[in-house]
Amino acid sequence: MTSVQYDVLGIGNAIVDVIAQAEEDFLVAHGMQKGTMALIDEARAAQIYQAMGPTIESSGGSAANTIVGVASFGARSAFVGKIKKDTLGDVFAHDIRASGVAFETEPAKDGPATARCYVVVTPDGERTMNTFLGAAQNLHPRDIDADMIARAAIIYLEGYLWDPKDAKEAFVKAAKIAHEAGRRVALTLSDAFCVDRYRDEFLNLIRKGTVDIVFANEGELKSLYQTADFHAAIGQLRNDTRFAVVTRSEHGCVVVTPASLTPVPAFPIDKLVDTTGAGDLFAAGFLVGLAHGTDHTTCGKFGALAAAEVIQHVGARPQQSLKALAAANGLRG
Amino acid sequence: MTSVQYDVLGIGNAIVDVIAQAEEDFLVAHGMQKGTMALIDEARAAQIYQAMGPTIESSGGSAANTIVGVASFGARSAFVGKIKKDTLGDVFAHDIRASGVAFETEPAKDGPATARCYVVVTPDGERTMNTFLGAAQNLHPRDIDADMIARAAIIYLEGYLWDPKDAKEAFVKAAKIAHEAGRRVALTLSDAFCVDRYRDEFLNLIRKGTVDIVFANEGELKSLYQTADFHAAIGQLRNDTRFAVVTRSEHGCVVVTPASLTPVPAFPIDKLVDTTGAGDLFAAGFLVGLAHGTDHTTCGKFGALAAAEVIQHVGARPQQSLKALAAANGLRG
Repeated sequence: MTSVQYDVLGIGNAIVDVIAQAEEDFLVAHGMQKGTMALIDEARAAQIYQAMGPTIESSGGSAANTIVGVASFGARSAFVGKIKKDTLGDVFAHDIRASGVAFETEPAKDGPATARCYVVVTPDGERTMNTFLGAAQNLHPRDIDADMIARAAIIYLEGYLWDPKDAKEAFVKAAKIAHEAGRRVALTLSDAFCVDRYRDEFLNLIRKGTVDIVFANEGELKSLYQTADFHAAIGQLRNDTRFAVVTRSEHGCVVVTPASLTPVPAFPIDKLVDTTGAGDLFAAGFLVGLAHGTDHTTCGKFGALAAAEVIQHVGARPQQSLKALAAANGLRG
Repeated sequence: MTSVQYDVLGIGNAIVDVIAQAEEDFLVAHGMQKGTMALIDEARAAQIYQAMGPTIESSGGSAANTIVGVASFGARSAFVGKIKKDTLGDVFAHDIRASGVAFETEPAKDGPATARCYVVVTPDGERTMNTFLGAAQNLHPRDIDADMIARAAIIYLEGYLWDPKDAKEAFVKAAKIAHEAGRRVALTLSDAFCVDRYRDEFLNLIRKGTVDIVFANEGELKSLYQTADFHAAIGQLRNDTRFAVVTRSEHGCVVVTPASLTPVPAFPIDKLVDTTGAGDLFAAGFLVGLAHGTDHTTCGKFGALAAAEVIQHVGARPQQSLKALAAANGLRG
C-alpha cells in the first residue's frame, strides 16, 4: 500500500481575492446578494472592479484557503488547481508554496487569466463574492496525479468545482483513486446557491458514498434539503451520510453522525472584521483534528480556533501560525 | 491668481507593497536592517520574494499613502508618480483613484515593471522594506503639470524621490511652480538611510526655503544632524526651518517652530499589528489640519488619529473612512 505523504490534499479553484470594504448600498446598487458567491464574466469583472473602492489582493480560493490553514497547523498538505502563467498566477503559486503546501499543477500558458474573486466586505464583516473563474475553469482530469492522490490520507473537494465543466470529472476521478487507495474523501457544499445549482448531483455524491465527510453551513444544508427547518435538515443529513459537520457562525458547529449530534461552541473573538474564509479555515482545523485522529469535540475546537483567527482581519488566510495559536490555547492533536 | 482645486498634491514613488509576516531571524538571514528601507534590483527582488512567506498585495508608496489618507479625511487631493501599464500598475491606479485622488500621470508603456516594495512585518509590528523602484525611476520633470501644481494649496514631496535620478528635477520644478503660485511646499525626510544618502541636499532644501514644512521622525532627524541627542537636533532644526513636525512613535509628535515646541500625544490603540504607513498617515492627518487652518495641536491630533488607524491592520492605507473616524472622535477641522 502506498504510504501517506499528505495529511490533506485539496482540489479547488485557484483564485486571487481582490477585497474592498463597502457600505450595504453598494451591494444593492450592483445587484449583489449579500453573503453569497456569484459567477461573473470578464466584462462584469471589469465593471465591478471599476466601481469598487481601494482593494487588497490576497490569494484565496475556498479549498486553497483550507489547505493553507492545514499547513499552518503544521500538517502535511497539497493543493491541485489551475492558474495561468501571469502576474496573479505567480502570486497564487508563490503564496501557497510559501505556506508550505505542495502545489504542482501545470499552469495554463494561454487562455483566460488567473481567476479572481471580487470580495465586498460590508461594515458587519460579511463578505459578498463575485468570481471570474478564468484559468480555473480549465482544471482537467489530466491534472489529477493518481500517485499524489493515493498518498493523501484525506482529499478535500469544494462544491464550487461543479461550476467549471471539466473540473467535476477531475473531482470524480480523484475521489475514485482515493477510495481505491483506502483514503477518505471530504466535500464542502461551498455556498447555498452553488447547492441550488447542483443539488441532485451533490445528494447523489453523498448518498452513493462518493464522499465520506460533508462540510456545510446552515444555509447550504437548508438549501440541500430545500427546507427552512434546521432540525429537519439535520435529520435528513443523518440518513444520507455517516459523517458531517455543520457550521452555524457564532453558534459554533454540530458534528453529525447517524448515532450522535455533538455541538461545539465558536471561539470567542475581540472584533469581527471580515468573515471571508471563516468556513474554509473552520474546515482546515477540523481536518487537522481528523488527520490526528482526535475526538469530534477536539476537531470542532481546532476548527473554531482557525475560523476565529481569520475573521479578525481582512483576507481569507491566516496571518499567524495556527500551530502556535493552537498550542497557546492548549489544543494539541 | 489660479484658484485652489486641491488641498494637498503629493509627488512620490508609485509602489505596490508586497507584505509578509516573518520572525526576526528572517531579517538577519537576508541581511536586512530592521525598520529601514533598502533599494534593491530585480534579481534581489526575485530572491527576496522567493524567500518570503505568503504575501498580501496592497498599493503603497509613502507620499501616495499620505495622499490617500488626505482623501479619506474628505479633503481634495492629487498624486503624481510613475507606474508602468502592467497588472500591478493597473492595481496602483485603480486603488488611488478609487480612494478619490486625482491621478493623471502617464503610465510608462515599456521599460521596467511597476515598482514593488517587499515589506517584512516582524511580530513586534515593525516593518522592514526592500524597494525595487522599477517604473517609478522614470518620473521626469515633463510629468509635472504646472497648472495642476499651481492649483494645490500644499504640495507634499517624499525624500525617497531623491533616489530616482530624474525625479529630483521633477521635485525642484514642482516646488518652484508652487512657490510662484504662492503655495506651500512640504517635504518628508522618509528614512534615516535616505537622509544619510542625501543629507547635504536635504539641508540645502530646508535652509534655502525650497521647502516650507518638514516632516521627520526621530531617527531621520538625528541622521540629518548626525547626532544621537534629540534635543540638540531639535535645536538645530529650529534654526533651519520655520515649521517642522517630528514624530516619535508611541510618544506622539512635536510641532517645531522657531518660537514654540508643541508636543501632541499619540492616539491610544488596542493592538499594534503593522507599523507600515504610520508616518505616512500621520502626515496625512497633519496636512488636513493645516489645509483647514487649524492650530498645531489639532493638526497633531488629526495625524495621531490617522496613524493609529493604519497601524492596527496589515497594509499602509486606511481601511475605514478617516473622516468618519475623526467625527466619531470629536475632531473637526
